[in-house]
Amino acid sequence: MKVSSEIDEFKDECGIFAIINNVEAANIAYLGLHGLQHRGQESAGIVTMNDSQLYAYRRLGLVSEIFTPEALKKLPGRTAIGHVRYSTSGESSISNAQPLTVHCSKGSIAVAHNGNLTNALTMRKDFEGLGAIFQTTSDTEVLLHHISRSDCNDVDAVVDALNSAKGAYSIAFLFKDKVICARDPNGLRPLCIGKLGESYVVSSESVAFNLIGAEFLRDVNPGEVLVFSEDGQMASSQPLHSARKSSCLFEYVYFARPDSIIDGVSVYYARKRMGAILAEESSVEADIVVPVPDSGMAAAIGFSERSGIPFEQGLIRSHYVGRTFIEPQQSIRNFGVKLKLNPSRTVLEGKRVIVIDDSLVRGTTSRKIIDNIRKAGAKEVHFRISSPPIKFSCRYGVDTPTNEELLANQMTIDEIAKYIGVDSLAYLSVEGLKRAVDENGGYCTACFNGDYPISYEDEGVKLQLRFEGL
Amino acid sequence: MKVSSEIDEFKDECGIFAIINNVEAANIAYLGLHGLQHRGQESAGIVTMNDSQLYAYRRLGLVSEIFTPEALKKLPGRTAIGHVRYSTSGESSISNAQPLTVHCSKGSIAVAHNGNLTNALTMRKDFEGLGAIFQTTSDTEVLLHHISRSDCNDVDAVVDALNSAKGAYSIAFLFKDKVICARDPNGLRPLCIGKLGESYVVSSESVAFNLIGAEFLRDVNPGEVLVFSEDGQMASSQPLHSARKSSCLFEYVYFARPDSIIDGVSVYYARKRMGAILAEESSVEADIVVPVPDSGMAAAIGFSERSGIPFEQGLIRSHYVGRTFIEPQQSIRNFGVKLKLNPSRTVLEGKRVIVIDDSLVRGTTSRKIIDNIRKAGAKEVHFRISSPPIKFSCRYGVDTPTNEELLANQMTIDEIAKYIGVDSLAYLSVEGLKRAVDENGGYCTACFNGDYPISYEDEGVKLQLRFEGL
Amino acid sequence: MKVSSEIDEFKDECGIFAIINNVEAANIAYLGLHGLQHRGQESAGIVTMNDSQLYAYRRLGLVSEIFTPEALKKLPGRTAIGHVRYSTSGESSISNAQPLTVHCSKGSIAVAHNGNLTNALTMRKDFEGLGAIFQTTSDTEVLLHHISRSDCNDVDAVVDALNSAKGAYSIAFLFKDKVICARDPNGLRPLCIGKLGESYVVSSESVAFNLIGAEFLRDVNPGEVLVFSEDGQMASSQPLHSARKSSCLFEYVYFARPDSIIDGVSVYYARKRMGAILAEESSVEADIVVPVPDSGMAAAIGFSERSGIPFEQGLIRSHYVGRTFIEPQQSIRNFGVKLKLNPSRTVLEGKRVIVIDDSLVRGTTSRKIIDNIRKAGAKEVHFRISSPPIKFSCRYGVDTPTNEELLANQMTIDEIAKYIGVDSLAYLSVEGLKRAVDENGGYCTACFNGDYPISYEDEGVKLQLRFEGL
Amino acid sequence: MKVSSEIDEFKDECGIFAIINNVEAANIAYLGLHGLQHRGQESAGIVTMNDSQLYAYRRLGLVSEIFTPEALKKLPGRTAIGHVRYSTSGESSISNAQPLTVHCSKGSIAVAHNGNLTNALTMRKDFEGLGAIFQTTSDTEVLLHHISRSDCNDVDAVVDALNSAKGAYSIAFLFKDKVICARDPNGLRPLCIGKLGESYVVSSESVAFNLIGAEFLRDVNPGEVLVFSEDGQMASSQPLHSARKSSCLFEYVYFARPDSIIDGVSVYYARKRMGAILAEESSVEADIVVPVPDSGMAAAIGFSERSGIPFEQGLIRSHYVGRTFIEPQQSIRNFGVKLKLNPSRTVLEGKRVIVIDDSLVRGTTSRKIIDNIRKAGAKEVHFRISSPPIKFSCRYGVDTPTNEELLANQMTIDEIAKYIGVDSLAYLSVEGLKRAVDENGGYCTACFNGDYPISYEDEGVKLQLRFEGL
Repeated sequence: MKVSSEIDEFKDECGIFAIINNVEAANIAYLGLHGLQHRGQESAGIVTMNDSQLYAYRRLGLVSEIFTPEALKKLPGRTAIGHVRYSTSGESSISNAQPLTVHCSKGSIAVAHNGNLTNALTMRKDFEGLGAIFQTTSDTEVLLHHISRSDCNDVDAVVDALNSAKGAYSIAFLFKDKVICARDPNGLRPLCIGKLGESYVVSSESVAFNLIGAEFLRDVNPGEVLVFSEDGQMASSQPLHSARKSSCLFEYVYFARPDSIIDGVSVYYARKRMGAILAEESSVEADIVVPVPDSGMAAAIGFSERSGIPFEQGLIRSHYVGRTFIEPQQSIRNFGVKLKLNPSRTVLEGKRVIVIDDSLVRGTTSRKIIDNIRKAGAKEVHFRISSPPIKFSCRYGVDTPTNEELLANQMTIDEIAKYIGVDSLAYLSVEGLKRAVDENGGYCTACFNGDYPISYEDEGVKLQLRFEGL
Repeated sequence: MKVSSEIDEFKDECGIFAIINNVEAANIAYLGLHGLQHRGQESAGIVTMNDSQLYAYRRLGLVSEIFTPEALKKLPGRTAIGHVRYSTSGESSISNAQPLTVHCSKGSIAVAHNGNLTNALTMRKDFEGLGAIFQTTSDTEVLLHHISRSDCNDVDAVVDALNSAKGAYSIAFLFKDKVICARDPNGLRPLCIGKLGESYVVSSESVAFNLIGAEFLRDVNPGEVLVFSEDGQMASSQPLHSARKSSCLFEYVYFARPDSIIDGVSVYYARKRMGAILAEESSVEADIVVPVPDSGMAAAIGFSERSGIPFEQGLIRSHYVGRTFIEPQQSIRNFGVKLKLNPSRTVLEGKRVIVIDDSLVRGTTSRKIIDNIRKAGAKEVHFRISSPPIKFSCRYGVDTPTNEELLANQMTIDEIAKYIGVDSLAYLSVEGLKRAVDENGGYCTACFNGDYPISYEDEGVKLQLRFEGL
Repeated sequence: MKVSSEIDEFKDECGIFAIINNVEAANIAYLGLHGLQHRGQESAGIVTMNDSQLYAYRRLGLVSEIFTPEALKKLPGRTAIGHVRYSTSGESSISNAQPLTVHCSKGSIAVAHNGNLTNALTMRKDFEGLGAIFQTTSDTEVLLHHISRSDCNDVDAVVDALNSAKGAYSIAFLFKDKVICARDPNGLRPLCIGKLGESYVVSSESVAFNLIGAEFLRDVNPGEVLVFSEDGQMASSQPLHSARKSSCLFEYVYFARPDSIIDGVSVYYARKRMGAILAEESSVEADIVVPVPDSGMAAAIGFSERSGIPFEQGLIRSHYVGRTFIEPQQSIRNFGVKLKLNPSRTVLEGKRVIVIDDSLVRGTTSRKIIDNIRKAGAKEVHFRISSPPIKFSCRYGVDTPTNEELLANQMTIDEIAKYIGVDSLAYLSVEGLKRAVDENGGYCTACFNGDYPISYEDEGVKLQLRFEGL
Repeated sequence: MKVSSEIDEFKDECGIFAIINNVEAANIAYLGLHGLQHRGQESAGIVTMNDSQLYAYRRLGLVSEIFTPEALKKLPGRTAIGHVRYSTSGESSISNAQPLTVHCSKGSIAVAHNGNLTNALTMRKDFEGLGAIFQTTSDTEVLLHHISRSDCNDVDAVVDALNSAKGAYSIAFLFKDKVICARDPNGLRPLCIGKLGESYVVSSESVAFNLIGAEFLRDVNPGEVLVFSEDGQMASSQPLHSARKSSCLFEYVYFARPDSIIDGVSVYYARKRMGAILAEESSVEADIVVPVPDSGMAAAIGFSERSGIPFEQGLIRSHYVGRTFIEPQQSIRNFGVKLKLNPSRTVLEGKRVIVIDDSLVRGTTSRKIIDNIRKAGAKEVHFRISSPPIKFSCRYGVDTPTNEELLANQMTIDEIAKYIGVDSLAYLSVEGLKRAVDENGGYCTACFNGDYPISYEDEGVKLQLRFEGL
């Protein structure tokens, strides 16, 4: 198999935020996006509505860098939606940054979308045949074409568009006098509602409410459509085709912040339970349990508690790596990884070490970490992963490598153990993961076992002519 | 009247460039845009076509800053179009930067446009009624909607779109296997064709050919459509509705570079003739002729030659003003203007001075210059403008103030003379200007006398809902 | 008392690094400084010696940003010293960035210094009386004046200069054919020696050796002077006045990285022991132990282990705060602190919480953290500090507030508890801290009890005329 | 001979500015430095004195970029000196940026210097022997060492220091209660005095007074020392060794702005006379006179007037070249030069052209300009230089190439004509130049004929150990 040397982790996908009926709408949206920054670090945008006119500010970069006081001053109005994004292409690009903004028969509309539509190319071809022009390569754009061609009112136009689409979406539409939010019938991506004084707020994750001091009301239900009028009323309905609940387990494993609660489950405690169940399933004699910080932290605490093996900080994370770090040309082996995560010789030397991480994608970084741990004197290295082997690409908005690039799709566990150089390797079972999150189930396990909950219409349809806005 | 303190000059509008069948297409387009930089300093963009796919790079800033070697490497292909732009809004914005790129039933298309359509809003309303969505506020976008809805071949679709549009356009369309260029039937904006080895090049002004070492072939005719196949063949036709030739006199007065030739007339010599005829029409007893550099330079040489009054550098232009200059808060009167154009006391003191400039828009800067010249000891100041009074806003792509903000629309010449503080003031006559450019005529004089050559359909149509991509 | 709202933590002081006899001297110094970045984030510099000529590169910023490949190429030679620094003034300044470089009778010399001289002003006055000119406000500069006026050889000149100085110094001098390193007789600041192939390396902390793959040899002894010849020989002597060993306890508490070993003691395990002894001294009934990340992490692990109270991640640290973060004007209470450290409601709600941090300086940040923890639903909050109360300013290179600004100098523990809003507060005892680090003692406890190990000659001497290089 | 391809022009050297007794001292100094920007574009600095303390701000870059309102706010006080500088080394460096600031027995002192000392190395060696340390490679630093070692009062200390130095200096010293300015006995570099309300201002050139609205009082005399007390009194004396007046002719030819007056002579009219005398000395039959803008402008006007040959703009200067312009790799011949100065085909084609420039250093750029003019169709090209051939390097502060790199030192005029490709070439005679400036004489002609007015003590003395602050 070809083992790519590219960055060895999942990319967070996207996060969305909305606020209705607030004099400081743009400011609050900015603060809310801070709390969703971990879901996308490539670009961020806020669009506000004021007097039937959209004001948009979208840039490449981090939320804290983009939204200067000057930028926020340019975003008047009492209603705002925001978006953070990690691009799926290698090339950073502003042209797909969201929220998208368009102008059509229904006036100006903006949309922010987390997820992925699995029949977007098919819909796109259909609209092109009708004379539509596309200005992005985003799957989200087809929804706007659907809405602009509808004779119905705004809400029905949105519902029709969503019903014609398939796939994953937590989404917010900004109209001149309302905001419409929806979560796909499978509930693949998270979305929740909060209240800040007289204002409603909607967010991909509840942590954003903590930051802005908003009260958490509830999760948006799979298939639910919420209409917020500009004066701050909320109406709920379930007009979308129903489907079996299949929310994304990787939100709990990796994407979401530990201080978020998704569909009633604390992400932090779910991770601790993953670690504890992992200890039940596959503990081993060892002297210390060491997390890969920060991703393996909660699971390692859970593993240590259940196994009774002491928890130690054996890998020290540096906070000063910087973005512009340049690996020295001819020099220190694994320097980049050591700079980020230095193995502490005093902790590791002569020890039998259980290393805990949350997932294993390509294995290239893990391999270096393990090598560094051995060089720091560890006697044995046992690697424990608090999620099952990932064997299939995600179709619902997570930027996974192709099947061919996924280590667990190409190798047995023994082969992987050998490849990354550990004395033993074990993953959490799918059942263990489900149990850790919530025994009632309703999860998508496609990336573990290929059981995709939604049919894939775009198979074979290609975007033959593409353009790239660099 | 309200005398605005805003920047007191016309904004250059836009410049376009195209190259077909060249291994270094993006590089040559970049060099060509250098030569058109004076036509727009806000943003620049190049789009190339390679293997049916567009590659686009558009940014705010100057050509020299935007197109780094890294940027140019991202633009493969043997065909390219480019654009420089000055935004008409106060706010700098990337969202209207050209070339526009879209994807539709005809594949990927890019377009670069200099000019302004006078029925764009009307067309836009029509398309919106048919379900189209707009993602820019540019008038150019309507042409793409027209093309995408056509069942004809690419060329006919472009011709139909242009025939349904009214107004001014020098324009280049990039299709997967061809480039289509056109100049509006009135010939309002310039466009010319050159040859660089086996490659055709098209440019708003001939100076771009000088820079890249291309041979000037000819001007594009008003109403002419040129189709360049990807292998470097050119086909010409005149399929557009015919109209009376009305090319823009202000290209000669102000916009174009002196080293360009437009419709067979050297811009530099036209400006010298304007100065000479101005001397015939309204010379005055004086000691020296002083140009406002660099805009009044050529006219002042002509004025001096014809009048026999010596030409002197009485205003020294600084090349180090910088972009970030900040006017000191409580301090030196007219400092900013002096920093840019310092009156030389040794030249001016005790003299009767004729100051020559090419135009007078709001008069705010001229007023300060005159004040500075007087402070430097000039005995008399006579202001001579090498173009007629501007009384009407341009509808064809020049960012003019509203009629109410145009000095000459609101005041008599005597009032203006008093307002800017000169002993005498004279403008070139419209007849004199025509004579200076070319006695055969065929010019648009709308900004001088309100004689607009094209009917204005968008009067009263408003873009009620607008969005701004900041 | 006046409670300042300034940043509520100690500033790391400085870090130094040296490498002798290596073809990649500048590159290795750069990598070594990465490992010392936590000791100073304001400026960094590297000076190399090549063919009797110094090459210097010093800038404001982080190591990773400053030393681009282009910058490193400008630093030839087989010998290098480097420095990272945190400025003590509020204003960032390049003029005091180190290594300092001078040219004198002994040729060109560079020096990198961590520490503070307590008779620098007195020496400075003396030298000024002899006609010397000073170009920095750094205390280090007096050593160079001493050396330049010496008739002795380089080594004796350095020894004489150090013997005339008082205070704290881990220091490296770069001469044309040698590097001289020294640690002050009290051993206040750390310094250690390593070997990388045929090259010697010297560093403030051993973690830099881990990063570059160098072997740790030993700590430099208090009062030891090391001379490294350019061909890689090392000679050691103890020519400095002897003094009682008084190494800085705060290196263990706060400054040093947990993966460093200082004077034979692992910083990580020392911190765990601080937590454990703190649990012995002042545990309390509670449900969970929560560290303030990352500073309280190791102590919290130790506290949890000893007390048996479960360790939980109750404060989630964000890695995306960014440098340019701007606190919203009229908005969310404690937003900045929450953004950095968000209290996790699911962990804290209804719990009796022991919060562990390493130190308490002004208390302003702690107060906000506690407030946020309470708002997240904690039933009781018990604050435990793994170091004793700081009552006296440091004179040996740590940028402490004045005595008047130190919370523990102005308030009783009960008053502090009330001020920051906790149910109980306890500090580690001085004896407990000593025991946690090393029972054999030899530590400076001045900041806890005012027992300064070195007399302070500069008391009352003022730098009456100062200049500031902004 | 080796013809270097480096930048083919003299570097402006430096400019200095001082203001005494003004509430806006830093602001005025900033505005004044704007007017001296042409004398040095690499770095700029302002130092103010407030309450016996210096405040300094020095940066690489242009005046307009460096001195933001924030920067100016950091410069309190009623007295300021400023400096603009062009580095003589290829590498841009901040370490030699002026004003220099030091602290010594006389308190804090700052100094700004235009010129070059010809015994600086000798003095430096002497001071090093006495234990002095140098922190820059600037010749100016020796003066400060001299002053700091003096037992006299400030003024006598400065006079002694200047009397021990040789060479060229227009210089300003900032002491805690006074500013001392001086011009070297030969008067090599210009310096003049003005009055702005109750404040004295001193500047390298009078144009700075025009900009800030100050009244020009007079030039500083060669050998004059001026002492300005902090309350705005001025005292003049002539305490320096006397010498024959030898002011720099190149100030008139090239360095100074045309709107300055130096030693009673208008730079603009001097240049016009150079052109006129050049026409007398070596005119030729031709159709047009074309200046190389902007350097040859005034001389070309004078040449045209005297010869009767029409003046035309045949080379168009672009104002948008930008700093970051990158010459295309494989492409257009002489593109960079054309981009900056495009030959106008309509003006040049078929013409016999006299091209006027002010000087010819290495000839590399001129060669390209000539080539471009020929390609634009000129029938004959006659090159006229409004200064004599430069055969010797300057020792007084102008960054000239070595003798070996000076075209006129290595080739006859015929050879040069052939090398740069012109039909004829002529320079202004030395006598003609003197006559153009001022028939009374008193000029340095060393660069033309090697007649250096000051003995050169540093010949053979080398700065054996050097350091470079990059």
